[in-house]
Amino acid sequence: MRKNILVGQSGGPTAVINASLYGVITEGKAHPEHIDTVYGMVNGIEGFLSGRCMDLSQELTAEDLLLLKQTPAAYLGSCRYKLPENLDAPVYGLLFEKFTSLGIGACLYIGGNDSMDTVDKLSRCARLRHENVSFIGVPKTIDNDLPVTDHTPGYGSAAKYVASTVREICLDASVYQQPAVTIVELMGRHAGWVTAASVLARKHPGDNPLLIYMPEVPFDMEQFLENVKNALDQQPNVVVCVSEGIRDKHGRFICEYANEASLDTFGHKMLTGSAKLLESYVRNRFHVKVRSVELNVNQRCSSLLASAADVHEAVLSGRTAVQQMLGGATGCMVTCSRRHTPSYELEYGLTDVCNVCNKEKGFPVDWITQKGTDIGPQFLEYALPLIAGEPERIMELGLPKYLSRSRKTPA
Amino acid sequence: MRKNILVGQSGGPTAVINASLYGVITEGKAHPEHIDTVYGMVNGIEGFLSGRCMDLSQELTAEDLLLLKQTPAAYLGSCRYKLPENLDAPVYGLLFEKFTSLGIGACLYIGGNDSMDTVDKLSRCARLRHENVSFIGVPKTIDNDLPVTDHTPGYGSAAKYVASTVREICLDASVYQQPAVTIVELMGRHAGWVTAASVLARKHPGDNPLLIYMPEVPFDMEQFLENVKNALDQQPNVVVCVSEGIRDKHGRFICEYANEASLDTFGHKMLTGSAKLLESYVRNRFHVKVRSVELNVNQRCSSLLASAADVHEAVLSGRTAVQQMLGGATGCMVTCSRRHTPSYELEYGLTDVCNVCNKEKGFPVDWITQKGTDIGPQFLEYALPLIAGEPERIMELGLPKYLSRSRKTPA
Repeated sequence: MRKNILVGQSGGPTAVINASLYGVITEGKAHPEHIDTVYGMVNGIEGFLSGRCMDLSQELTAEDLLLLKQTPAAYLGSCRYKLPENLDAPVYGLLFEKFTSLGIGACLYIGGNDSMDTVDKLSRCARLRHENVSFIGVPKTIDNDLPVTDHTPGYGSAAKYVASTVREICLDASVYQQPAVTIVELMGRHAGWVTAASVLARKHPGDNPLLIYMPEVPFDMEQFLENVKNALDQQPNVVVCVSEGIRDKHGRFICEYANEASLDTFGHKMLTGSAKLLESYVRNRFHVKVRSVELNVNQRCSSLLASAADVHEAVLSGRTAVQQMLGGATGCMVTCSRRHTPSYELEYGLTDVCNVCNKEKGFPVDWITQKGTDIGPQFLEYALPLIAGEPERIMELGLPKYLSRSRKTPA
Repeated sequence: MRKNILVGQSGGPTAVINASLYGVITEGKAHPEHIDTVYGMVNGIEGFLSGRCMDLSQELTAEDLLLLKQTPAAYLGSCRYKLPENLDAPVYGLLFEKFTSLGIGACLYIGGNDSMDTVDKLSRCARLRHENVSFIGVPKTIDNDLPVTDHTPGYGSAAKYVASTVREICLDASVYQQPAVTIVELMGRHAGWVTAASVLARKHPGDNPLLIYMPEVPFDMEQFLENVKNALDQQPNVVVCVSEGIRDKHGRFICEYANEASLDTFGHKMLTGSAKLLESYVRNRFHVKVRSVELNVNQRCSSLLASAADVHEAVLSGRTAVQQMLGGATGCMVTCSRRHTPSYELEYGLTDVCNVCNKEKGFPVDWITQKGTDIGPQFLEYALPLIAGEPERIMELGLPKYLSRSRKTPA
């Protein structure tokens, strides 16, 4: 019996979350004997609850699908919506009514830790209610902090963006002779995977970035200033990379030190990042030129230099979810693991979503060097395959051509 | 008689200043009957004064030259050094001694307004001293603010980076349903060329960025807040682009409202944080989610999506300088103008450097729409050819391969 499937995107954007959506749609279309229509939730489970949904099988042309694959952010729109713990809550009844009315046999949810919580609750609820709808999670997060799986789609492109952008910042910082410190702030409030990728920018020993501060290592301001001083003694241009989530030994975020600092003319507090705060500490201590650079949202959504490996793996993750759904799986998330082969090869599998939801995989502490300010060679071996290659790209008027929902279906 | 030539880079980095250097070196090598060695000043005129110089004819292999062409920032290093007004100052004697001892017949200086001041003074000084050394400027600045020439190498790639990055920020901002304002700060303290490029990110009427604030239009805080309110009434996700140099009607920089300005060696105000400041105004007025994004140094130096047209024109500018030097020119800067042809074609020429040095070409005020918050179609016609195409690129371990002086000649 043919059924319809429903797919949604949730959590923060990435460069390849739409490549996973492309994988789901194309694999869905490849099984016409089992799958009728692929529907998309607009703005995740939250938008779906308010009736926002689109027919992805019909509305996207072949060219649209190719554009979708190279479009960053989240084509379907996203949400941050936590379903209630109580599986008797009315919202579940409402959701399953909607699933029934659309003839949905399976729901695939592309997202990170929080989104897997949604998959978990819905699959448990389906069992309790004896509803014949399966739920499968497709991993997605630049943070790379999902347990069980070797890595997550989205991380490779974020790592490649960080490495190449930090490399350019290092070149930029090196043009003048005057001593100068550049502090780059990178995403990852709890796990340092994205920050660690900055080490890929270093091309020879003694090359910038000279110092890397991870959220896994307690941050000490005096030690930091001492390290910057030593680095300035080594060379005039020092680039430091810091995680947005660096904390002192008491667990207090360094960016919280700024409470007394920046006020606008009305006395409003201006929010300050870790790098901006460290900038003022370094300037006041050493009276050298200091600049802070926050890579901001582009590190999560930029496709200017997406990783071909990452795009490919995101597509395969989406395809695997559909295949596993056809095989009867539910309450699971797609995972990947490395084969024990000389070259990099992945094997796709499943894990019970309970092993993933609301859990975080930190950066391995033994991959951080002894002084706590550098990343060891184990990480390079791990990360290099993830940033390999650049996908071919359709361009238009000098810019990458992206698919925009607002043009297809005015909201 | 064969002579040596000397080339230097000065001012801020760009994505293509090294492409101009590539043009100078390869054109220099193409005339062995007239040119012996191409020397490079390390860290511009300032480094050269302290004896820092390299033999570019010998030290760079054919592969190095290809890498040089795709390497952003400034391979030779840069400086911000102002020669004295008094042409009898001892520094001039010292410089001409050095020119003589190296057998320099011509000096090419790649830079912007301030660098052209150096070309002007040195060429006037040579005439006064009856020294047979010619001086030619090769234009370079992302600011696109040099008079006479149609545009400057460096601008096309900066415009392409801004357009593509703002496009990605708009996609990122659109994923959630909740009302949110994103404020993007762009470079250009006096001229709005870089900020204007953000309009290239808009793909259909009503698409973000909805508001663009140029330094050429006096900024009014209440009107700005009113405009943001109207935009939020139109759609939940509003992206605003602002120049770092927006000023109120009294000429006061908006970022000074936060009391954070300092001066560089040329007496320029160094600006931080228009967007950050506006972020706090919008948050406090409307209590919506607000984010500010400063594109920072990458808009001037990123090669992640360089413009092939820009790279090509930077090379030709360098080549033209060498050819004009061989033809006897001095005290001039290379210029380009558009031919009156249906397709985009450039013609290269020269202008007396006096027409350029210490002058700035603002963005045409009649290309800014009546309300002062948008850019008209004349700019699109002007800018689209400048961002066309992407150069082929040599990659290594997943990243663009760049040439680094620190590996060739340890300082």
